[in-house]
Amino acid sequence: MEYPSKVIESAVSELSKLPGIGKKTALRLALHLLRQPESDAELLGGAIISLRRDIRYCDSCGNISDDSMCQICSNPRRDPSQICVVEDCKDVIALENTNQFQGRYHVLGGLINPLMGIRPSSLNIDPLLQKTKEGEVKEIIFAFAANLEGDTTAFYISRKLQDYNLRISSIARGIPVGSDLEFTDEITLARSIMNRTLFSPTPENSH
Amino acid sequence: MEYPSKVIESAVSELSKLPGIGKKTALRLALHLLRQPESDAELLGGAIISLRRDIRYCDSCGNISDDSMCQICSNPRRDPSQICVVEDCKDVIALENTNQFQGRYHVLGGLINPLMGIRPSSLNIDPLLQKTKEGEVKEIIFAFAANLEGDTTAFYISRKLQDYNLRISSIARGIPVGSDLEFTDEITLARSIMNRTLFSPTPENSH
Repeated sequence: MEYPSKVIESAVSELSKLPGIGKKTALRLALHLLRQPESDAELLGGAIISLRRDIRYCDSCGNISDDSMCQICSNPRRDPSQICVVEDCKDVIALENTNQFQGRYHVLGGLINPLMGIRPSSLNIDPLLQKTKEGEVKEIIFAFAANLEGDTTAFYISRKLQDYNLRISSIARGIPVGSDLEFTDEITLARSIMNRTLFSPTPENSH
Repeated sequence: MEYPSKVIESAVSELSKLPGIGKKTALRLALHLLRQPESDAELLGGAIISLRRDIRYCDSCGNISDDSMCQICSNPRRDPSQICVVEDCKDVIALENTNQFQGRYHVLGGLINPLMGIRPSSLNIDPLLQKTKEGEVKEIIFAFAANLEGDTTAFYISRKLQDYNLRISSIARGIPVGSDLEFTDEITLARSIMNRTLFSPTPENSH
């Protein structure tokens, strides 16, 4: 595609590097920005530059934070003996929205993926092992995506932690609430039979 | 949704102002940017700011351009007696990709849409009328989207030009090449019968 101007071409080329945004969408976004006031483009451009330059991470859990300690780690009502290990900040937000977890988090910043060159040493795993050695932690909960990378990461960390007296668990895999059995894939269905739970007509967390 | 940091919150809020990008996608884009080198975020942010600040428009046709005259208007081989009127720069790119049109363009920068407050005076229509008065133009071709705004704009401009001795045409509406009749909506089908063309077994522009 030939663009009528170099500024359009460079904006399209940069925007289309974002995941899920192709050349056509990038051009549509660029033309949208041209129709907005100049201050809008400055706010967006500035926010993107500041995002990468001014971002800070919590010294304790590795989550994105405004201060050296995030709001969850610095909250004395959050139980430091339970650590939920997640891939990234999106997962913390999703789990916090459930209002079901009162412990703390540990954010790895990715999952082990040898094919993509992501090895344990490039993730925030050592500080988790260090925190666990210090003795306050009683339970580690893995809340990873149900795929090969998630399973590999859970396996790696659980091996590193096997000598400590810890309860190690993983969030339940099974049929999502509201789903039909016939539309669920075989692996999920197989896992949900294997890991069946005792039926209770009035479960504690029912809504 | 509560974000763990003000820089993330402001990036998500600005990104989600873009069309087709909601809060969840904006967060995914922001987290993607955090995983890239700082220079990538600076290039993207810079390109967006420069886009709105450094953009120039062709003095003759209103298309986006690097110079005061765009490459098409300054090309002596493009026929100045045929003017194809389009909504925006995306349409010029799409039509140029067909290699079928050797005239020039006129870019309105939008279509008349009273409900959205877009009136003829806020579009690049007067320079088109001016250009036509000067006498070189022999044919005006409307290449607008097949909707109410496109029809309104074509009607408005054709009324303004009715006193000049011009051929005024519109790109053909009909069944897209490769489409089945049964999946075409009734209005398109009705128009394609009304505006049927003489059948020629070896059409001029066949591929």
